[in-house]
Amino acid sequence: MPQQLIFTNDVADALSEALGSISPSSTFIITDTNVESLVLPLLRAESPETVRARKIVTRPGDVNKNLDSLSRIWSDLVAGGANRRSAVVCLGGGVVTDMGGFAAATFKRGIPFINIPTTLLAAVDAAVGGKTGINFEDLKNEVGAFCNADAVIISTRFFRTLPTRELLSGYAEMIKHGLLTGPDTFNRLLAFDILNATPDELLPLLEQSVMVKKQIVDEDPTEHGLRKALNLGHTPAHAFESLALEQGHPVPHGFAVAWGLVVDLILSHMMLKFPSDALHRLAAFVAEHYGAPSITCDDYPALLRLMHHDKKNTDGNIRFTLLSEPGAVKLDDTATEEQITAALDILRDLLHA
Amino acid sequence: MPQQLIFTNDVADALSEALGSISPSSTFIITDTNVESLVLPLLRAESPETVRARKIVTRPGDVNKNLDSLSRIWSDLVAGGANRRSAVVCLGGGVVTDMGGFAAATFKRGIPFINIPTTLLAAVDAAVGGKTGINFEDLKNEVGAFCNADAVIISTRFFRTLPTRELLSGYAEMIKHGLLTGPDTFNRLLAFDILNATPDELLPLLEQSVMVKKQIVDEDPTEHGLRKALNLGHTPAHAFESLALEQGHPVPHGFAVAWGLVVDLILSHMMLKFPSDALHRLAAFVAEHYGAPSITCDDYPALLRLMHHDKKNTDGNIRFTLLSEPGAVKLDDTATEEQITAALDILRDLLHA
Repeated sequence: MPQQLIFTNDVADALSEALGSISPSSTFIITDTNVESLVLPLLRAESPETVRARKIVTRPGDVNKNLDSLSRIWSDLVAGGANRRSAVVCLGGGVVTDMGGFAAATFKRGIPFINIPTTLLAAVDAAVGGKTGINFEDLKNEVGAFCNADAVIISTRFFRTLPTRELLSGYAEMIKHGLLTGPDTFNRLLAFDILNATPDELLPLLEQSVMVKKQIVDEDPTEHGLRKALNLGHTPAHAFESLALEQGHPVPHGFAVAWGLVVDLILSHMMLKFPSDALHRLAAFVAEHYGAPSITCDDYPALLRLMHHDKKNTDGNIRFTLLSEPGAVKLDDTATEEQITAALDILRDLLHA
Repeated sequence: MPQQLIFTNDVADALSEALGSISPSSTFIITDTNVESLVLPLLRAESPETVRARKIVTRPGDVNKNLDSLSRIWSDLVAGGANRRSAVVCLGGGVVTDMGGFAAATFKRGIPFINIPTTLLAAVDAAVGGKTGINFEDLKNEVGAFCNADAVIISTRFFRTLPTRELLSGYAEMIKHGLLTGPDTFNRLLAFDILNATPDELLPLLEQSVMVKKQIVDEDPTEHGLRKALNLGHTPAHAFESLALEQGHPVPHGFAVAWGLVVDLILSHMMLKFPSDALHRLAAFVAEHYGAPSITCDDYPALLRLMHHDKKNTDGNIRFTLLSEPGAVKLDDTATEEQITAALDILRDLLHA
C-alpha cells in the first residue's frame, strides 16, 4: 500500500482528517519526554483528538530505542485497553517514529499508525518509507519490520524548537536526496539558507525532497534493488557514527551522513568519474556547516571493521551506493580497503580535519 | 505473496529444494529441546543442510513463547553472524513456528524462513497462513506480525512420536476445516480413525484440510473478513483454555477447540438453525475423544469475562463465527450473555460434563 503523505502547516486539521478515515476505537499518542514538553502542548491547543488520546511517553534518544522501551510501549497499550481497531500517533523524531511504528506494527499483529515527525531528520527520512524497528545488542535497527504508516503528516512548524545541529542533521539527508535527483536540485540545496529559512520557505523544498524518497520506496519497499540508492553516504556514515559512539563522543546521524556523502562522492570520483567540481562544492558546504569527523589514520582499521559489519553486506565485500554524476546512481558497488583508505585521506584533506 | 506449501513424506528432499531456491548465505534451525532430541536426528540423518545449519534451541511449551525466548533467538542469530541473506528453518510445533517465524520476520526487518511443523496441530494451523508472534503479559499472541513463511513443508512422518492427546489436538482443527468446507468432508473426518491411521493414510486428508485454510488466508491475509471463518469454535475455546490455565490444570489447545466447536454449533443451531443431527454427531465424537471441560455454572462469569477480552472483539459485544449448515459461514455474529450461558448449559449436557 503506498503511503499517504500530507504536507501542511495545519497539523491539527490533517490529523483530524487522517484519524477520521481510520475511525479508531481509541487513540494513543507515543512521544518522548522532550517532545511532550515542547511540541505536544502546541498540538493539543488545536487538536481535540490529541487531548482525548492516551499518552505513552518514552525516554528520548537513540540509546533508548531498545527492547526495554519497546516492551514498555506494548505494556502501556495493553494497560490502556488498546484493541485491533485502536490507532497510534507517533509524535517525535526518528526514535519515536521508528520504535512507535514498530510497536504499532506488531501489537496484535498490527494496528494503524500515523507519523508526525517533529524533526527535519525524521520528516525527510525516518517517518516515511515503512522502516520501523529498534536497536538490539548495540546494533542499529537490528530488529524491526517494513510497515507503512497509514499517514505521515509533514509540517515544518515544529522545527522552530530544534537546535541548529538538529536542523543541519536533517538537511544532510535532503542533500542526499538532491544528489540522487540531479544537478539543479543539488545546487539549489547548497544555495538555500537552511539556518535562517522560515517554516513556509522550507516546506516546499522539504516536500520535493521527501517525494524523492517516496518514489524510490514505492517502487522497492523492501530494499531489494532501487531503494539501496537511499544508502548513498550511509556506509561510511554508519561507521563514523559507531566509532564516535565507541569513543564516547557521539555525533548526530546527519553529521555522519554529511561526511559519508563526501566519502561516497570521492569514491564515485575515483571509480565513476563523478565531476570534481560538484564534489568540491559539497565538501566546502560540509566543511562550513558540519566540520569534520575527529579521526586520524589510527582510526582507519576500526572504520573498516565497522563498514565490514554493515547490514548491507551480504558477502565479504563492503558495499557502497555511488554516482557517476548527480542523479545517476550505481547500486551495490564495492570498494577495496585501499580505495577506502585513500578516500578517507582525501576526506580529511577536503574537510581540513 | 501466496505461500508455497509442500506435502511430502520426503522432507529432506523438499527442504533441500526450498533452501536451494532461497540460496541463503547461512542457515539456522530454530527448534525446542523436545524436537531436538526426538525429530532433529531423523532429519539430520537424511539432510546434509540441517547438519551444516546452526542450531537455536528454545525451551518447549506455550509458557516459553514469550519475549525472553524471542530475545534469546535474536541474540543467537546475532552471535551466529546471521545477515540479511541468511535463512531460518523452524522445526517444531506451533510455539516454534509462531515464535521462530516472528524472530525471522523481524530480524534485520525480515529474513526468509521455512516452517517444518512436527505436530498435527502446527501442520494444520500454526505453520500455515503467516500469523507469527508471541504471548505478552499472559495475553496469547498479543505481539506478532503477519508474515508468510517462504515455504511450509508438511509431512505426517514426525507425528509417530506424538502422544495421543497431541494428535487429537490437531485433529480438532481438521474437523473445524471440515465444518467450513461442507457436509461430505465433515462426515468423512468424523468417520476417519485418526488414532490408528498410518502416516500415508493421513497425509492426503491433511493436505485437503490445510488447503481449506490456505484458500481462505490467500484471499484475506490480514483477517479483515473471510479469514474470521477460521475463528469457528475459537471464541469459547480461548476462554476454556485461559480458564483452565488460571485454575492450574491447563488443557491442550485442540481440546479447547473441540469443545468450542460444539458451543459454536449450539449457538449456530439456536440462531441460524444449524441442523441438530450434525450438532449431535459432533458432540458424540467430541465426548468420546476429548471428554468435557471441567466447568460448572460457577465458572460462567469467568468464561464470559474471558470471552469479552477476546482480540476479535472491537466493541462491547462478544463475536462468534457461526454456521447455518456445514460449509455455510456467517462471520462476526454476536451472542448475548444469556444465549452464551444457555449454550454452556447445553454443552455440559451433550458432553455429559
